Amino acid sequence: MKAMNFLAFAGGVGGAKLAEGLVRAVGPEQVAIIVNTGDDFTLYGLHISPDIDTVMYTLAGIANPETGWGIAGDALENYGMFERYGAAPWFRLGDRDLATHLLRTEMMNEGATLSEVTRKLARRLKVASLILPMSDDPVHTLVDTDKGALPFQEYFVKHRWQPVVRGLMYEGSAEAEPSPSVLRRIETADTIVICPSNPYLSIDPILSLHGIHDALLNASAPIIAVTPIIAGEAVKGPAAKLMKELGVEPSAVEVARHYADFINGFVLDVRDAELRQKIESMGMGVLVTDTLMHNSDERARLACEIVTFADQLRPEKLGGCLLDKTEAPGV
Amino acid sequence: MKAMNFLAFAGGVGGAKLAEGLVRAVGPEQVAIIVNTGDDFTLYGLHISPDIDTVMYTLAGIANPETGWGIAGDALENYGMFERYGAAPWFRLGDRDLATHLLRTEMMNEGATLSEVTRKLARRLKVASLILPMSDDPVHTLVDTDKGALPFQEYFVKHRWQPVVRGLMYEGSAEAEPSPSVLRRIETADTIVICPSNPYLSIDPILSLHGIHDALLNASAPIIAVTPIIAGEAVKGPAAKLMKELGVEPSAVEVARHYADFINGFVLDVRDAELRQKIESMGMGVLVTDTLMHNSDERARLACEIVTFADQLRPEKLGGCLLDKTEAPGV
Repeated sequence: MKAMNFLAFAGGVGGAKLAEGLVRAVGPEQVAIIVNTGDDFTLYGLHISPDIDTVMYTLAGIANPETGWGIAGDALENYGMFERYGAAPWFRLGDRDLATHLLRTEMMNEGATLSEVTRKLARRLKVASLILPMSDDPVHTLVDTDKGALPFQEYFVKHRWQPVVRGLMYEGSAEAEPSPSVLRRIETADTIVICPSNPYLSIDPILSLHGIHDALLNASAPIIAVTPIIAGEAVKGPAAKLMKELGVEPSAVEVARHYADFINGFVLDVRDAELRQKIESMGMGVLVTDTLMHNSDERARLACEIVTFADQLRPEKLGGCLLDKTEAPGV
Repeated sequence: MKAMNFLAFAGGVGGAKLAEGLVRAVGPEQVAIIVNTGDDFTLYGLHISPDIDTVMYTLAGIANPETGWGIAGDALENYGMFERYGAAPWFRLGDRDLATHLLRTEMMNEGATLSEVTRKLARRLKVASLILPMSDDPVHTLVDTDKGALPFQEYFVKHRWQPVVRGLMYEGSAEAEPSPSVLRRIETADTIVICPSNPYLSIDPILSLHGIHDALLNASAPIIAVTPIIAGEAVKGPAAKLMKELGVEPSAVEVARHYADFINGFVLDVRDAELRQKIESMGMGVLVTDTLMHNSDERARLACEIVTFADQLRPEKLGGCLLDKTEAPGV
């Protein structure tokens, strides 16, 4: 049984949860995660990478369990002082979290790439999985709405995703290169998982980069997408609302269709079991299971099922989940 | 009785205390403070102005009463996270304090001068006195020691002023201009006070700037220096140790001599009363009083005595201390 080589595509919270499950299921060194950076932005001159941080904090075991992002037990003394100055921004950075942005910005100002910085920070937090920013070049997701074209964080945080979306742009993606090992990782992975992140806001920015879509079309690994939509609703965030506004039915079927040209497998939630045939008819395998991940055990359980599902999608079996059945109920 | 126009020269803690006393003694709008910026430095790309912040926080009533610098009740969550990253710097910035540096750096990166930034931040903290950085240009105090030439903060914080000092340099001061209204303020002040700050580390960097020494020589106001040395010891910090290392006797007499060419008055501590004649013989008036400022009332009391002393050093009386004698015991 050879070492497994899992590659996950992830945005923030949903992606981080499944990445954590995969780490428990196959071991941290066997997992690499390509993370969306289209949401990156600058605040007080600091380079902030929300999705990378959410994945990194989650894998380091320090993510805030309530929110899924930020650092557990973090405080807002710094933010309170900004309020005292009458200069509080619409984005709240915790005091501990701020250390990440200060260190990252300092290293980048000294010439390090986002990939190099991410690797250093993750190592220092004892994260053994590889977290790969999708690109070291700037890509900015712009959300075209009834209130105008908004940078992602303004749409998402400042306006709490309430504006009506008319379209999306990934500014800079035509010029941006995928970060150094991304294409090779896609080529050499033995399993690729598209996490239950927002297809338009988290996964499409990655797919928009030169070479990534082609690499997925040519990949030898089974590629499995996990639905972020259950019974017509997003598990979290604006996915369903946004699909409606873009004229697409908010349904797991449409998520499967969105990825249909390059995925071999789709993980459908048990609450949508009746959609199985419709998705299978697109020419992909379907795993029907409980896709909600309320806690760490549920993340591991879902990841284990994906490991087994992947083995069904390729000629030879690679190896099962590290967790035995008593540890991971439901497998 | 016309409005008074006090100008103080200050470094950090000692200067901030007397500045606060002056504010209580004559009212905040009547006081401007020229503050040393030779200790300014950069940490994680942030512009840090320790003396300006100490003066500003003190006048805003939010300084940490234990240390005299930093913000009361501040926390070190951010610093703790830096420790977790194995990247804790030797300079600890509190979480609230960090907001000041972030705002300052952002405004300066957008093109504002340090003077403009300081005025904005101070106003937002409801400080009605004018805090003037000595210069908007970079000046760096370098301490030449037996461990080599150290930037001020390395000497002061990292090495806790233990290296033996051989000399001082104010790097950049030959090219730096005093900040815009400094020279005019010296010309138009009706009382100038050199606070009990370190003559070499806090006041000399200001005096090293083009035009300041000449402006003091030509000033019509009485110029009064307050001793930072009592009974051969510094009230706080390295002044006495440094004087010895520079071959100067650590004595109020030598402080008076250091400023003798431009001051008219000297405030000597009551514990050094026997030095009065020696200092008077340099051709200046001497006020002998308790110069220690353990609390806000003692700061106001000392400031009131200086206000009265200044009136004795000029032809016409300008106006007394705002505080009546019951409020300011000892006047």
